[in-house]
Amino acid sequence: MPDLAPRVVVIGSGNVATHLAHALDSAGADICAVASRTSEHARELALSLSNAAPAVVVEEVPTDAAFYIIAVSDDAIADVAATLPPVQGVVAHTSGTVPIDVLSDVTCRGYGSFYPLQTFSKDRAVDMSAVPFFIEGNTPETAAALRALAERISPTVCAADSRLRGQLHLAAVFASNFSNVLWGVAGDILAKEGLSLEVLRPLLRETLEKAIDRGPDNAQTGPARRRDTATISAHLAKLSDPALKDIYSSLTNLIISRQCQK
Amino acid sequence: MPDLAPRVVVIGSGNVATHLAHALDSAGADICAVASRTSEHARELALSLSNAAPAVVVEEVPTDAAFYIIAVSDDAIADVAATLPPVQGVVAHTSGTVPIDVLSDVTCRGYGSFYPLQTFSKDRAVDMSAVPFFIEGNTPETAAALRALAERISPTVCAADSRLRGQLHLAAVFASNFSNVLWGVAGDILAKEGLSLEVLRPLLRETLEKAIDRGPDNAQTGPARRRDTATISAHLAKLSDPALKDIYSSLTNLIISRQCQK
Repeated sequence: MPDLAPRVVVIGSGNVATHLAHALDSAGADICAVASRTSEHARELALSLSNAAPAVVVEEVPTDAAFYIIAVSDDAIADVAATLPPVQGVVAHTSGTVPIDVLSDVTCRGYGSFYPLQTFSKDRAVDMSAVPFFIEGNTPETAAALRALAERISPTVCAADSRLRGQLHLAAVFASNFSNVLWGVAGDILAKEGLSLEVLRPLLRETLEKAIDRGPDNAQTGPARRRDTATISAHLAKLSDPALKDIYSSLTNLIISRQCQK
Repeated sequence: MPDLAPRVVVIGSGNVATHLAHALDSAGADICAVASRTSEHARELALSLSNAAPAVVVEEVPTDAAFYIIAVSDDAIADVAATLPPVQGVVAHTSGTVPIDVLSDVTCRGYGSFYPLQTFSKDRAVDMSAVPFFIEGNTPETAAALRALAERISPTVCAADSRLRGQLHLAAVFASNFSNVLWGVAGDILAKEGLSLEVLRPLLRETLEKAIDRGPDNAQTGPARRRDTATISAHLAKLSDPALKDIYSSLTNLIISRQCQK
């Protein structure tokens, strides 16, 4: 490590807080307290760290840490900001959507965002070194401090102001949330045949890797790409739900128009 | 191996033919000929096998092999069927969409389909042991023979008549082709910010694995899941293309209606 272990207070005890605390702990940061409204969760997280840290309420965090990472739900960030005592370090939230100004009334060295672009679940391991971090600070010095902290975890650290985080979030909704619901539709079709989505796992893994390696338009396959109108009509005839017919048509037309623009 | 190495003729030299020939070769089958209209490709594939097989035209395949695997584009299957001489073995195509009756006029021991549910590219390695195979035969004996051949490659072998293959294909279009085009939309949004789809790779990998492990409806996240109308409105305002606005709304409504049905 080029510098001394930075002292970090983690505020929150949910999925993001848990994964970040463990990643910072493994990266040699000193998690000197875990703060949460649900003290049992905070205690559990605090005890799981290499130096069992105290679990405290937000009002009682140590005030001399270098960083205060607020990893709570978007709605709760303003509450935490209002409750936090004056502190000496940098305060940052982990939200992809909330502007950093929500923290502007906190007395601190600087404030910003420390946003890991990933979906976290408590019981699923995540390779944090592969997660991109998006950083914003209210001053260049704050941004640099947050960048140095993120770089302890991941080699992929980018600057992202609130506008850019908004565009990232929009991209993630198309790429992640919307794909996910289409996998739900596919799962229903398979379930009626006694099959599970599991049979599509190898196909979907390969589709994803190929899309990113070659670009989705180059990697596209299927009836829309081939303009195979017989198959498209047969598929539409199989769909009884008008909403699904409409989505099938819209996405088929989107594939065709993107292929024409290539 | 419980039985002698089956002699297999591979017809085709494209992506599917190449991956299947190598997988069968590695699994101890004896690829006794590769047939293709483009003799250079056939020769290249034939020479890459452990026993350099002859490259021939379809009219001149050996007639005494156990299997003839027709791995050509859907449109070309009927042509191959019309050109193939009378043979002693089982003839099968690898299409997810073409009924097996396209092979009914071939003189052979039996005919069917041998469909690996995966997307193949020549220069991308695929773990064939993870690929599900869907099998259909014109007789139970033919189906059993094709199943035994598939089980040399993969532990996941299912029976699938033409109707079921059609449903599988419909599910794959929703899950794979339609997700892929949404990744294209996301890639465009990122490109305008100087970022590539690469930044979403860890998120999308985890979204995919979680969707299959827990079911997409349980794994769903994002503004539609939370009914976060402020974020949904902000996203719609950012989209200038009416087709994308329409797709955003339709998929948001689909997420909301699926969450209500849970």
